[in-house]
Amino acid sequence: MAVGKLRMGMIGGGKNAFIGAVHRIAANIDGLIELSCGALSSNPETAKESGRELFLPDHKNYGSYQEMIEKESLLPESERMHFVTIVTPNFAHFAPAMLALEHGFHVVIDKPITLTLEEAKKLQTKVKETGLTLCLTYTYSGYPMVKQARQMVKDGEFGQIRKIMVEYPQGWLSLPSEKDGNKQSAWRTDPSKSGISGCMGDIGTHAAQLAEYISGLEITKICADLNIVVDGRALDDDGNILLKFDNGANGVLIASQIAAGEENALKIKVYGEKGSLEWHQEEPNTLKVKWLDAPTQLYRTGNGYLSAAAQFNTRTPSGHPEGYLEAFANLYRNFALTIKAQIKGENPTPEMLDFPGVDEGVRGMAFIENVVASAGSDQKWSDFKI
Amino acid sequence: MAVGKLRMGMIGGGKNAFIGAVHRIAANIDGLIELSCGALSSNPETAKESGRELFLPDHKNYGSYQEMIEKESLLPESERMHFVTIVTPNFAHFAPAMLALEHGFHVVIDKPITLTLEEAKKLQTKVKETGLTLCLTYTYSGYPMVKQARQMVKDGEFGQIRKIMVEYPQGWLSLPSEKDGNKQSAWRTDPSKSGISGCMGDIGTHAAQLAEYISGLEITKICADLNIVVDGRALDDDGNILLKFDNGANGVLIASQIAAGEENALKIKVYGEKGSLEWHQEEPNTLKVKWLDAPTQLYRTGNGYLSAAAQFNTRTPSGHPEGYLEAFANLYRNFALTIKAQIKGENPTPEMLDFPGVDEGVRGMAFIENVVASAGSDQKWSDFKI
Amino acid sequence: MAVGKLRMGMIGGGKNAFIGAVHRIAANIDGLIELSCGALSSNPETAKESGRELFLPDHKNYGSYQEMIEKESLLPESERMHFVTIVTPNFAHFAPAMLALEHGFHVVIDKPITLTLEEAKKLQTKVKETGLTLCLTYTYSGYPMVKQARQMVKDGEFGQIRKIMVEYPQGWLSLPSEKDGNKQSAWRTDPSKSGISGCMGDIGTHAAQLAEYISGLEITKICADLNIVVDGRALDDDGNILLKFDNGANGVLIASQIAAGEENALKIKVYGEKGSLEWHQEEPNTLKVKWLDAPTQLYRTGNGYLSAAAQFNTRTPSGHPEGYLEAFANLYRNFALTIKAQIKGENPTPEMLDFPGVDEGVRGMAFIENVVASAGSDQKWSDFKI
Amino acid sequence: MAVGKLRMGMIGGGKNAFIGAVHRIAANIDGLIELSCGALSSNPETAKESGRELFLPDHKNYGSYQEMIEKESLLPESERMHFVTIVTPNFAHFAPAMLALEHGFHVVIDKPITLTLEEAKKLQTKVKETGLTLCLTYTYSGYPMVKQARQMVKDGEFGQIRKIMVEYPQGWLSLPSEKDGNKQSAWRTDPSKSGISGCMGDIGTHAAQLAEYISGLEITKICADLNIVVDGRALDDDGNILLKFDNGANGVLIASQIAAGEENALKIKVYGEKGSLEWHQEEPNTLKVKWLDAPTQLYRTGNGYLSAAAQFNTRTPSGHPEGYLEAFANLYRNFALTIKAQIKGENPTPEMLDFPGVDEGVRGMAFIENVVASAGSDQKWSDFKI
Repeated sequence: MAVGKLRMGMIGGGKNAFIGAVHRIAANIDGLIELSCGALSSNPETAKESGRELFLPDHKNYGSYQEMIEKESLLPESERMHFVTIVTPNFAHFAPAMLALEHGFHVVIDKPITLTLEEAKKLQTKVKETGLTLCLTYTYSGYPMVKQARQMVKDGEFGQIRKIMVEYPQGWLSLPSEKDGNKQSAWRTDPSKSGISGCMGDIGTHAAQLAEYISGLEITKICADLNIVVDGRALDDDGNILLKFDNGANGVLIASQIAAGEENALKIKVYGEKGSLEWHQEEPNTLKVKWLDAPTQLYRTGNGYLSAAAQFNTRTPSGHPEGYLEAFANLYRNFALTIKAQIKGENPTPEMLDFPGVDEGVRGMAFIENVVASAGSDQKWSDFKI
Repeated sequence: MAVGKLRMGMIGGGKNAFIGAVHRIAANIDGLIELSCGALSSNPETAKESGRELFLPDHKNYGSYQEMIEKESLLPESERMHFVTIVTPNFAHFAPAMLALEHGFHVVIDKPITLTLEEAKKLQTKVKETGLTLCLTYTYSGYPMVKQARQMVKDGEFGQIRKIMVEYPQGWLSLPSEKDGNKQSAWRTDPSKSGISGCMGDIGTHAAQLAEYISGLEITKICADLNIVVDGRALDDDGNILLKFDNGANGVLIASQIAAGEENALKIKVYGEKGSLEWHQEEPNTLKVKWLDAPTQLYRTGNGYLSAAAQFNTRTPSGHPEGYLEAFANLYRNFALTIKAQIKGENPTPEMLDFPGVDEGVRGMAFIENVVASAGSDQKWSDFKI
Repeated sequence: MAVGKLRMGMIGGGKNAFIGAVHRIAANIDGLIELSCGALSSNPETAKESGRELFLPDHKNYGSYQEMIEKESLLPESERMHFVTIVTPNFAHFAPAMLALEHGFHVVIDKPITLTLEEAKKLQTKVKETGLTLCLTYTYSGYPMVKQARQMVKDGEFGQIRKIMVEYPQGWLSLPSEKDGNKQSAWRTDPSKSGISGCMGDIGTHAAQLAEYISGLEITKICADLNIVVDGRALDDDGNILLKFDNGANGVLIASQIAAGEENALKIKVYGEKGSLEWHQEEPNTLKVKWLDAPTQLYRTGNGYLSAAAQFNTRTPSGHPEGYLEAFANLYRNFALTIKAQIKGENPTPEMLDFPGVDEGVRGMAFIENVVASAGSDQKWSDFKI
Repeated sequence: MAVGKLRMGMIGGGKNAFIGAVHRIAANIDGLIELSCGALSSNPETAKESGRELFLPDHKNYGSYQEMIEKESLLPESERMHFVTIVTPNFAHFAPAMLALEHGFHVVIDKPITLTLEEAKKLQTKVKETGLTLCLTYTYSGYPMVKQARQMVKDGEFGQIRKIMVEYPQGWLSLPSEKDGNKQSAWRTDPSKSGISGCMGDIGTHAAQLAEYISGLEITKICADLNIVVDGRALDDDGNILLKFDNGANGVLIASQIAAGEENALKIKVYGEKGSLEWHQEEPNTLKVKWLDAPTQLYRTGNGYLSAAAQFNTRTPSGHPEGYLEAFANLYRNFALTIKAQIKGENPTPEMLDFPGVDEGVRGMAFIENVVASAGSDQKWSDFKI
């Protein structure tokens, strides 16, 4: 059966939204997906205007996500969207995701998956019930050199993992820009829109997911210190966490949005018995691999010596740098290939299935809740509970 | 007047082609262009098969570029392609480009523009005659930090430019892989397909264009040493050139495809009276700016302190690395915005017009011819002639 | 009054010792100090043999430190050593230091100052009583760019300091080399020679001193996780500590000797309200300075734009890298200039007095004791007590 | 036979001299050499005053090099200096060197060896006649990772060498500081003190020596472009040279002292059939080694996997950076070990003999003369003649 481009319906992401534009580029890159319809803002006027700018025909340019989901579900299969992409602030993830699943649509959703762990668990149940596919855009696990790192750990090249250091410093909330009309900082520092954590919810979850994704380990204990550094904030803008993993390894996770002068400096180091690896998101095409008694190696995107997983997620030859948008596009592409395989009645390969889903979403929400609880406790170690 | 997506017709770039896929991604990224039709191979069977894989409907999937150009020109404006993209080897650039221009289509073409300087001049004449737009994909000038570099030179921040060092070492032709069935190396080392120069035509032209683009200067004299390092080749796979520029500055251009272990290590340094800049293509989001008596600065993509030109060509916030595909996409986007403005009867802005065109194409072919002539001469300096 | 070279008497540091050779080089570099006598090993035979290899005349080549201190104290001033340098393992620091002070000799001593906090306090009392000078070789504070960092913080260039991240990963104890006859690892993993902490005593103290030295802040609370990663060890070989400083800033200190593949990768980041700094010991001539809204700057050793403190501690012009031995030599040189000023009856300048002393020694021992106590507690935060 | 410290007599290098202080530190570092006497300035008053500051006793503090050489030669062997170190400007190298050799003293001399090729050849003859040892301080060949590079080339790890790129940009002569009383720039831009070349004589010779030292090849043809960039100068302050080596390899040598914003950025890349190496003087502890089909490796000073030659020239463990002064000290140490072996009647090992000598001096002067001749010629290639 021939399957054409997948049709995407976007919820949120209208004019002036940041992450919506990123999702569209990521969906465009490989020519496997087309923006078919949208409910691009909670304000119907803005929604329509945004749709026109994106060349949506009027009948596919909806005023609300409810309208979009309901009307699309009544269309013949050949015109109906295949999936929705939800790029609203955190508090507005759950309802459209649930509605889409209930109407038989697959879902792509920006992280964190929901506002609360409870909502996340409901989505998890619904996904399992329906057999539909949910892709959660933990972007950083889409980078080829992150895939390479994960594969090398899995293959035992470093022996047993002993220690993980992950840090994610940003500086963009160093000043109280939420008081000066900055839309991005306004909702991220507002508990009603962001949830119970600011910095840890926004970027700490990325760091935790990356550590678990590369190492194949799970966090089992945490000791968290959350800080409100800029006066007047209601949510943490900085934090440090001691970690224990299920194999006994220890770790440290540092996230900050008041690290003045930093851009988006996510870095991870994973130490094993025989060697270690180091990866920096801002120079994503290089994976540093260090050994006990041999020269450090620089594994680089696009080379023939890389693992199949790394090569599968690369579009250009070595020396032609790929970046954030390509990493993002890898999530979309793998999701699209999975859906297309299912439509054709084939089993998606493990490489196609390599994108974060609802289970990572639940784990991310549990991370937030556990971190906030630990931060409020005088006890050193708290068990990581889901 | 509302203008939808621009319709692209691709010539070449079928199955297993490298650069065709890159052009498609670059055209996709911003959602301004759609692949509308194609003549994707000189072999009609391969062409059709390639088109089907790219979801082209049968009536838009042509067996030859002649057929495509002729049939498309007969379609109503609303269905007709807006432009062709030519991604065949060098020897097959001229004929389809000329045919497209003669039928009123704009053209995007991979560099070098043609096989000979004479062909390039003919295209130049035709472009001027028709008033159509030609975009030549000297990718590296699409990077935001290259725009920033150019702007800072233009603004006189470094004073008069005194010296330019540009090097472009690659290692992928270190072995005679053209004898082992490598398609990419086979055509690039074949004079009938590549022209009179190998390495200098393929990558030396990029280096020369980048030096002139950033500095705003023109090469006026050269002293070239071309080398065939791997036995049995007919074309240079390595070369070094001393340069003089029109303001009296001196320079060096080094290009090599036998620099074993290098990926795509294009680097440029431009020295002025008061300071200098340095840019590496493999870490494209950083521009190093050095001063006589102050700390070196790292200008980074996506920051508010950058020039309008740099910001206009960026899609993500600082710390979210952009790469080769985004640089490539900037050429397509600026080309598309120019065409769309023209369709709407508006004047494209200088920022929209910032992509290489037929004049750079002529200059690139002149570079090749001058370099080959100088390399064959015992005289130290040769004037750069067009 | 003319003062010639200062005469140094070395205790420990004989054949096959590592740190003794480093101290001698550091003392030699500036031509201000000469090795005048030694008691170079606890084994009198080895001591004598080591002395001969270092060109000590027989009458200055002593069999024990007691003999050296006593005999030297009886010599006329013009022949007598000016100070002792103690480079024995930790457990053998206190006794010779105390004996030297009691006989009127200044002291240089490798860190940590003693085996216990109690011993350190006794030395502190004795130093204050005698008015003699004690220099403790926390090497890393001798680097010019560390001086630059400290000065910039002091000058308020970054505003109030908010967060400090310091990490010190080494890999050399990844394997149980102490069981294979490695002398360096044998004593460092032996509580009777090293004290109550392994990794934190050996390198965690460096990290803590560096953080306090650069920031001018003091640690007030800690939450420590110490680990024995390699089976069979009695002391920590790894650890992570959450920190609070006296101005409310938070921090993280990570030290590990099982970070396989790392050499001596001490790194520090200090974040303020307006900007931040980053320094890596393995590339010590560069200080990265980051700003909220301006390009990152690379401050480099040897430039005219640096602070007086940085310039005072540099010997070569910019671009001529200085390293670990020069940083070490800065401690010796400043110590020597201080002593020489005193001999001449002059007041040492603040720049001369810029070397760690007995107070830093006490603080380092308190760090070790507090960390070990916190690591054994279920309570999250412990006050830092001296 | 017991041999104590070697006694050094210094010519030049008094107050305010730069390179004299560097030589003294380099000689001090390993405790093998002592400054025994000096004629530290051509001005007798300055000479004496400089000597007192360096703690020279009056009878060893000479007013002229002639006096020093003559008087020392009359002293008994046990008091007599072993060698002279000449750190005057270029024009004042030959006479004291010749006089010292005639009186039986070994010689250390700063590069370039003399003012003219003719003088250099006379010294070469005299050195051969007398059997004395001359060490020429081409500092950069003293770095451990340069030794490692040389060894790997020699061992054939990269196959046949095909291309060498060496660049040495400095910025310190970007302004006409010689007109503002800068002593260093005044003599370096004065033909009567520097010789027939400025930039190429001062730093181009370093670059050429490094290329030949690492590759084991010899330059056979050159095509030089020398430039006077700053108005009013009599000597080149910038230049670019195309090279051919005796095995057919090609190369480029770039040297500039008007590269605004550069410190001392000597870099070299050597490409062979199977891989290549890259070394930067400003980060001297890392040697980048690149391969056709395997990850790039970072060889680092102080590791057990390095060649014997690299390890022999290292003083600290890995991760404890060594720098310019240690590289300089390696020349002195190897020279001293050679002399001491000779005194003991032993044969110096090849590792001891690994320092540049009079033959490199002659080759360096020939480089200058050939480059200046080629720069004045319209012919592309000139043979390298000695």
